[in-house]
Parts: sequence; structure tokens; C-alpha cells
Amino acid sequence: MKDSVLVNAQEYAVVGAIWIEKKDGSERFLGKGRIQLMELIIEHGSISQAAKAMNMSYKRAWELINSMNTQSSKPFVITQVGGKKGGGALVTENGLKAIEAYKNLQLRFKDFLAEESHNLQALTY
Amino acid sequence: MKDSVLVNAQEYAVVGAIWIEKKDGSERFLGKGRIQLMELIIEHGSISQAAKAMNMSYKRAWELINSMNTQSSKPFVITQVGGKKGGGALVTENGLKAIEAYKNLQLRFKDFLAEESHNLQALTY
Repeated sequence: MKDSVLVNAQEYAVVGAIWIEKKDGSERFLGKGRIQLMELIIEHGSISQAAKAMNMSYKRAWELINSMNTQSSKPFVITQVGGKKGGGALVTENGLKAIEAYKNLQLRFKDFLAEESHNLQALTY
Repeated sequence: MKDSVLVNAQEYAVVGAIWIEKKDGSERFLGKGRIQLMELIIEHGSISQAAKAMNMSYKRAWELINSMNTQSSKPFVITQVGGKKGGGALVTENGLKAIEAYKNLQLRFKDFLAEESHNLQALTY
């Protein structure tokens, strides 16, 4: 076909990003950064260490957590006062469910992108 | 369910963006901006006027066109020298095919997002 769009579509991919937000666009609920933050809180047991690992300020990390906590039916991250570590942080069961739901969504998105990348071959010689 | 993630998932949506690029990430091929640029060239018959309508410099518009033209089997946009208008620009048949392919891809992505937004209700009470 002389009018094909691409010479070699196999060298190309459909890529992108998705996230969950309020329908009116006023506030994000879940995205890559928030999920990573929760995973790092699980790993480090601390908001400040998780923030540091992401090169993010504690203030910003707390804003993200507060945003999720106030939008969900129950908080995703809770802080513990005192103790040997001087107050750690925990991802709740609700937070774990959110992480799982987001990861499953990302897997379906990955499938969509793979299929569409394959479809690009219809644009080639 | 006490452990639902969201109080009211109907207020939320899965949103995002997709585009086509080289697999190694070295160069974009087609995205929202490039498609809009070609549509404005069709409307105005001129790269400079299309660029102006997007608040984009002529240099940047030409870079985007050159990127598409050199990656495709045949150019998407061609310029005409001289004539009454002092040289206009045309979107080729190949360019029109690319616009159509991209729009169909976007429609399928829109369907994906709608379905996933509906799926969010599994995260609610």
C-alpha cells in the first residue's frame, strides 16, 4: 500500500498514563505517585522516609495522604504516636485494597496499550 | 461493606492520555497536539496561522511537522511555494489517514476509560 502511514510500525508503541480523579476534575484520588508513596510507607514504616525516597517534601507527602484519606470511606494511611520509632505510619487494609485495585486497573491499561501497539501494524507497509 | 475504598465512586472517573511514540522513547510520532496542528492547517491552509491559533511558535510547529514527515512513509504536511497566498500548506492523504487512525484510537481509549470508570463502583458501598 503506497499510502501507509508508517514505514515500520513495529518500531512504534501506543503509550500513556491514567489516573482516578473527581469527575469535575477538582481533585485527584489515585495515581502513580500516590501508589508509590503508599508502597514506600509500607517499606519504610514512615511518611518522612517514604517522602525522602521520592525526593518529595514531608508537607507534600502529607497533602497527598490527606487527600486520599478524606476522599475514601476510611483512611488509607494512619500515623502512630510515640513508641520506639517516635511515631510511624501504617497503610490500612483500605489502603491495601486501593493499591490492589489501582494495580489491576494498570494491568488492564497495559493490555489495552499492547493491543493498540499491535494494531499500529495496520498503518504500515 | 465496611472496607470499601470510596464512599461514592459515581463521583469519580478514570482519566488519562495516550500517544504514539518510538518504542525506545526517543521520539514522539502522534499525539493530541500534532493532530490539532494538522486540523488547524486544514482549517487555515497555513502553518503560521495554525501555529498562531495554538499559541505555538512557527519554529515549534515546523519541528512537529518535520518530525511526523520524516517518520512517516510519506509526508503528512506539504508546503506550496508562491501563489496568491504566498505559499500555503496542505495536509496530505497520508496525513488525513493518520488523523483518522488517531481519532479511532482515541475513541477506543474513551471506551476503555468509560468502562473503567464504571468499574470504580465496585470500590464503593
